[in-house]
Amino acid sequence: MAFTLDFTAMTEPVVPAGVREADWPALASHFRAAHRAVSDIAATGVYGYRELEQQGDERARVGAFARGVHGRYEDVVVLGIGGSSLGAIALRTALLPPAWNARSGAQRGERPRLHVMDNVDPRTIAGLLEMIELSRTLVVVISKSGGTIETLAQYLVVRERLERAGLPVAQHLVFVTDPVKGALRAIATRDGIPAFAVPPNVGGRFSVLSPVGTLPAALCGLDIEALCAGALAMRDATMGDVLAQNAAGLFATLQWRAHAQAGQGMHVMMPYSDALRDLAPWFVQLWAESLGKVDADGLNVGPTPIASVGPTDQHSQVQLFMEGPADKTVTFLRLERGAEDVPIPRLEAGEKALGFLGGHSLGELLDVECRATAGALSRAGRPSMTMTIGAADAWHVGGLMMWLMQATTLAGALYGVNPLDQPGVELGKRLANAELGHPDSGAPIAGTATSTVASRTLRVD
Amino acid sequence: MAFTLDFTAMTEPVVPAGVREADWPALASHFRAAHRAVSDIAATGVYGYRELEQQGDERARVGAFARGVHGRYEDVVVLGIGGSSLGAIALRTALLPPAWNARSGAQRGERPRLHVMDNVDPRTIAGLLEMIELSRTLVVVISKSGGTIETLAQYLVVRERLERAGLPVAQHLVFVTDPVKGALRAIATRDGIPAFAVPPNVGGRFSVLSPVGTLPAALCGLDIEALCAGALAMRDATMGDVLAQNAAGLFATLQWRAHAQAGQGMHVMMPYSDALRDLAPWFVQLWAESLGKVDADGLNVGPTPIASVGPTDQHSQVQLFMEGPADKTVTFLRLERGAEDVPIPRLEAGEKALGFLGGHSLGELLDVECRATAGALSRAGRPSMTMTIGAADAWHVGGLMMWLMQATTLAGALYGVNPLDQPGVELGKRLANAELGHPDSGAPIAGTATSTVASRTLRVD
Repeated sequence: MAFTLDFTAMTEPVVPAGVREADWPALASHFRAAHRAVSDIAATGVYGYRELEQQGDERARVGAFARGVHGRYEDVVVLGIGGSSLGAIALRTALLPPAWNARSGAQRGERPRLHVMDNVDPRTIAGLLEMIELSRTLVVVISKSGGTIETLAQYLVVRERLERAGLPVAQHLVFVTDPVKGALRAIATRDGIPAFAVPPNVGGRFSVLSPVGTLPAALCGLDIEALCAGALAMRDATMGDVLAQNAAGLFATLQWRAHAQAGQGMHVMMPYSDALRDLAPWFVQLWAESLGKVDADGLNVGPTPIASVGPTDQHSQVQLFMEGPADKTVTFLRLERGAEDVPIPRLEAGEKALGFLGGHSLGELLDVECRATAGALSRAGRPSMTMTIGAADAWHVGGLMMWLMQATTLAGALYGVNPLDQPGVELGKRLANAELGHPDSGAPIAGTATSTVASRTLRVD
Repeated sequence: MAFTLDFTAMTEPVVPAGVREADWPALASHFRAAHRAVSDIAATGVYGYRELEQQGDERARVGAFARGVHGRYEDVVVLGIGGSSLGAIALRTALLPPAWNARSGAQRGERPRLHVMDNVDPRTIAGLLEMIELSRTLVVVISKSGGTIETLAQYLVVRERLERAGLPVAQHLVFVTDPVKGALRAIATRDGIPAFAVPPNVGGRFSVLSPVGTLPAALCGLDIEALCAGALAMRDATMGDVLAQNAAGLFATLQWRAHAQAGQGMHVMMPYSDALRDLAPWFVQLWAESLGKVDADGLNVGPTPIASVGPTDQHSQVQLFMEGPADKTVTFLRLERGAEDVPIPRLEAGEKALGFLGGHSLGELLDVECRATAGALSRAGRPSMTMTIGAADAWHVGGLMMWLMQATTLAGALYGVNPLDQPGVELGKRLANAELGHPDSGAPIAGTATSTVASRTLRVD
């Protein structure tokens, strides 16, 4: 089994506001139109995330680099934010053994620990630098544009430490950036720092299968060719315009329809698997930043994705999903039950509260709880879908990520927005750059909420 | 500086749908009524989370236990889920040095690593057990009722491993549970396993200041008395019925009003501090599970809290917050700038994209970006608040957690729901227990969404 989408609980009669049998032709036709809009511009080359064949040479270079440095570093530190970090974090959680960074070198097969510095908090960075041995560390600096100020600030801090320690920067830095443009590319050329290219037609949130995701993965020994092979298989399965046969189209169309026709604009992504749990924040970026924007009519549109994890969130958010306003869909994300399981021993047979658990297994418990939560939501009239993948291996995880990227592209057309831009973050960037004195930003802009009116503040001492 | 709430950007004219000057008297009076409803039942003892003086003896026992075992364990493993794990995770992130579990014993001051097993995934548990040395491990089993099946299943697995290894369970297990009732209490008494009490009037999501949170914290050397002292100071500052003087009431009232009167029912909690980042999922449980339910009129009510983190999410969710539907409030959570900072060195002066960063600091960058994001949201007409705490130390973090718990209690009254129950999760529990053969659950219930209708599934091979 590779991938399945069970969408029973998005339909009537299972949930009252679900798709009715009579609705399917109109949905299929709306999907065909969206598909056509996507196809019409595909030839212009904007969907670089799925042109993985053309990126084979760079991927081979990444693989060769990782093999070449094997055993040389105790720690790999990724400096990157947003689309330059969420993919690597998701791959680490999905494909490396649990508690990777707490393991000894021998337990890690002499692969490095992997630290993703996705923020500029001084405490985090100082804490990390104090803990690692720079002489045994490789720092991966990732910024597609070469102009991400958070990442560049981190880079300056780290570079100065390397220089102060007398370590050759070309042995301890590697860049992932534009093939030609930007400050990081210029510095790499100047200093002989190894650098890998993010194709210009691959945006940050769609870049996990480029060196942005594959370099950190390969450095930890993961199989990036299998990752991309799974993605390619999924891409090929999600190119058609027949709704009933396109798993990405179906996911996108059902979510869009739930929002547009049933007021269910919050889309919960709820992995029932620790391996898949960081796929949820990765999906949140993809869905939020691609779809939350102004449409052609000037309306503010877009669903709100919400990351969750089961069964943990049965003890947190599920109360709200069950009894709060009926404004959400829930997508369960699960693994096919595999050989890797832990039996629950038959102990404490005399204790009613737990004796019955003996003889079951943890994997079974996970599965039972996922079904029970889906069942409870259905009985409360709340819609859900279940995505299942065959295993938490590189091939399937690559396929799953491609599934969701393809769905996002199609959802852009359904919502009537361009899923590839992010105009709404420019103002904040401009305000920050102005305050910091970026040479292109002109005079500082009165940037704070409180600049023109009296501030309203309550203080507790 | 201890705590401040800047709510300027929740008001007109900063944001168009904000509170107008003329609205304050009605809001103050509505708050007084909610405050009265809370006070009226306070004497019945339901708000145990704030009765920290009465819990001093148990807290002293926790502290003494932690001191007594100092140096004995390399790893502490918490088995707990939801309210039994989110508090400990938040305290770990806020108060222990970054990358704690990746540090050597010497770097940790011979304190243990802290693993919180908040899920039942067999891969995670098998991976952890394979990595740690059980003879140097203390396992903290946390279930208030003593009947949480996920935690009990984990307990059975761990206990059997301990027995198989010939290790005395009373030296490697410690329980946190009801003082009298439940399976864990009975087992503790039978086997001489140390056990600490969750007061019966303290619910899971309000339990971080009980042994649920303080035991893991104390085992890692954190100051739990300072944690509770900060919480007590904040409690005392948030008991009054004057809106303008009660920071918890103000937070609750502004959120409730944004939802009820401006359609802003999604409440984003966005720490601009890595230390505070796991406060967001802790708050999500608190706000979601307390407020998302059926009110006295039978309506499904409650806001949807969303966890976020800045600046990271400027590169993810902020596009949606800026240009998506105007249905959200954003609460920035930040630390007062402290001595702990990292200067950005003056390097690469010739590179326009980063030369200007030299001479600033990472702490300044964090602050500038927080203000810039708040400013950009205001200019887009999107409301926000900023909560600032003086430092990421035990006293302030305890105060912050109390602030949000007090706000949740008051919000319950504003929304007209009981913030202390969670009836919506019972059905899912019952379905799971039935499928697993719990003796009290009767015959298995047809629990899945697909049990009565043909399943609709698309498969990709």
